Amino acid sequence: MELQQDIPESKDKILFAPGPLTTGRYVKQAMLRDLGSRDVAFIECVREIRRKLLTLGGVSADAYTAIPMQGSGTFGVESVFSSTVPPHGKLLLIINGAYGKRMAQMAHVLHLEATTLTYAENQTPDLAAIESALAADPNISDVVMVHCETTTGILNPLRAIGTIVQNAGRRYIVDAMSSFGAIPIDIKACGIDYLISSANKCIEGVPGFAFVIARKAALLATEGYARSLSLDLLAQWKGLEADGQFRFTPPTHALVAFHQALLELEAEGGIEGRAQRYRTNYETLIDGMRTLGFQAYLKPEDTSYIITTFHFPPDPHFHFEEFYRRLHDKGYAIYPGKVSDAACFRIGTIGRIFASDVRALLAGIGDTLVEMGVEKMA
Amino acid sequence: MELQQDIPESKDKILFAPGPLTTGRYVKQAMLRDLGSRDVAFIECVREIRRKLLTLGGVSADAYTAIPMQGSGTFGVESVFSSTVPPHGKLLLIINGAYGKRMAQMAHVLHLEATTLTYAENQTPDLAAIESALAADPNISDVVMVHCETTTGILNPLRAIGTIVQNAGRRYIVDAMSSFGAIPIDIKACGIDYLISSANKCIEGVPGFAFVIARKAALLATEGYARSLSLDLLAQWKGLEADGQFRFTPPTHALVAFHQALLELEAEGGIEGRAQRYRTNYETLIDGMRTLGFQAYLKPEDTSYIITTFHFPPDPHFHFEEFYRRLHDKGYAIYPGKVSDAACFRIGTIGRIFASDVRALLAGIGDTLVEMGVEKMA
Repeated sequence: MELQQDIPESKDKILFAPGPLTTGRYVKQAMLRDLGSRDVAFIECVREIRRKLLTLGGVSADAYTAIPMQGSGTFGVESVFSSTVPPHGKLLLIINGAYGKRMAQMAHVLHLEATTLTYAENQTPDLAAIESALAADPNISDVVMVHCETTTGILNPLRAIGTIVQNAGRRYIVDAMSSFGAIPIDIKACGIDYLISSANKCIEGVPGFAFVIARKAALLATEGYARSLSLDLLAQWKGLEADGQFRFTPPTHALVAFHQALLELEAEGGIEGRAQRYRTNYETLIDGMRTLGFQAYLKPEDTSYIITTFHFPPDPHFHFEEFYRRLHDKGYAIYPGKVSDAACFRIGTIGRIFASDVRALLAGIGDTLVEMGVEKMA
Repeated sequence: MELQQDIPESKDKILFAPGPLTTGRYVKQAMLRDLGSRDVAFIECVREIRRKLLTLGGVSADAYTAIPMQGSGTFGVESVFSSTVPPHGKLLLIINGAYGKRMAQMAHVLHLEATTLTYAENQTPDLAAIESALAADPNISDVVMVHCETTTGILNPLRAIGTIVQNAGRRYIVDAMSSFGAIPIDIKACGIDYLISSANKCIEGVPGFAFVIARKAALLATEGYARSLSLDLLAQWKGLEADGQFRFTPPTHALVAFHQALLELEAEGGIEGRAQRYRTNYETLIDGMRTLGFQAYLKPEDTSYIITTFHFPPDPHFHFEEFYRRLHDKGYAIYPGKVSDAACFRIGTIGRIFASDVRALLAGIGDTLVEMGVEKMA
């Protein structure tokens, strides 16, 4: 005798967040199956996922490989840090947000030698400084950067920095958590050795695993480096190559959902098609927010169409907690701010959402400002 | 425009495995929602899960705490190893199967000092030897054991060893991966400091996270021990206590499914009720297999009702790959063997399966033996 599921009191909120996101119905329905982790259908599903990820990255299976890793995106980043940085390696961490800072904390916990170049959260990194840092310190083995810092939505110059890193003959580790699948990335041209992203971002799967696209020659040179059993990237790759299986129990349901999400991404026209929808979401949002009098935190040229940070309105009637709650009650989940030097909130424009959803959110925001007695700022 | 899901060619196999398992339909249907990780409904879901896990463990929230950790069960074990063993700690690993061996490998990768007591895979540990080992080596800080070794299904004497560990004043780390939820465990009486289990075992959730039930006084003494950022158990606990949120993206869908699975476990009569169903599954299996002439690998008094290991029949017509495939084609997924010294296979009796499923499997096995020309052995 099974309990009937409770009838939800309301429909799910639309998530204007950096992930977990609102996902498609068939993505979720794909999880209505129990597949054994040794089942041939499941093993083929994982193989296809790995192949399709390489295709999205525009790289061949000869030179690159895609490795799913259980856990969140941070687990994926730590798998790269803890199992690919050589024993006497040294990281150059380029930081302009909370996720860059988290990587510095990770390096500290793992006792990895690291040096940092830190910038304001609304500022892109200084290319000349990176070049100088690499020239000055031959011990730096790996340069690490977040592509799109979801702290603000800022987009860092992946290719320009990649050129500097390649010219200096160092490895390039890129956290492309919230950009991969929605912003075209030429992994080879950028000289990326390890790109990390996550199931629940722009490919629009559900959370449960991260993945790494690795340059094989770099990965194969890491034998014996692993500082963790669970997060051992090379061992995970070897297991998958040997018999198609994860070493340890995979999140089977999240993987079949991700497979469906990849099919839907293809049906939408791949990364270009998805980028177009997200860009329209973003433009709808920024126009509407401007009309309502909100100011974006970033300069337009530095911003992505992934997530946008807005200043709190300069009106004493505005209280974020109330604003958030009122929007939530209307069916919209926005996201708190994360910048250290300004009072801000964030609105994501990724996931299975459309311009019509953004327009509905904008109407909800307008109504909420009136309810709160916040004066029109524009 | 979304792709329609493919129509599956056949219904899902019944999983007679140690996990991922066949789960209930409402458990899977609970995943048809996208909840934000900061959503109050989700935060309350995680709170309830943590409370219910303590109730299942028969311990109070004053002295114990339940901490979910992203990843598979092995990630959970590593979170305990890497973040609770003191810098100069030493493990005593009691090993009688592959999962014990994996923990020795984990200790090695983490550079933890460790000594081992290793037994044959069909033998329970020697209590006197454990007592002597602890008396002889005051540097041993933590004793580690797997409760039910899914390698064979052997059930280790949790309480008797716990008494020895407590009398010696050491910490007790127990991998209860495949027993928690189905075999009553008195955490306090056994003197367990850290019990690790996983979402996709006897609570019958889907894979995506592990959980640790920790004695608070032990956990609170681990400040600064963590050797990993992602797997930092104390930091995970602090985050959950502070605002109810995971530090890093949680597998939201797996968590809501687990919440439903916990409700269904309660409806079944808790651990006792579930144990009764699994025991019936096991007895149906062992009787039927005996009738078919199969021999169990373990002595009956050492075996659990979780998973059972059977010797290959001594008939040259028996080939496991063919046996497996023929059963698979009939709709039943059994499990390969993992013991090092005998040709065996395994059949799990946990998950949302019933005696009728086991009888159907037995009929399928009987037919398969006939098809393969394997002589009746009994």
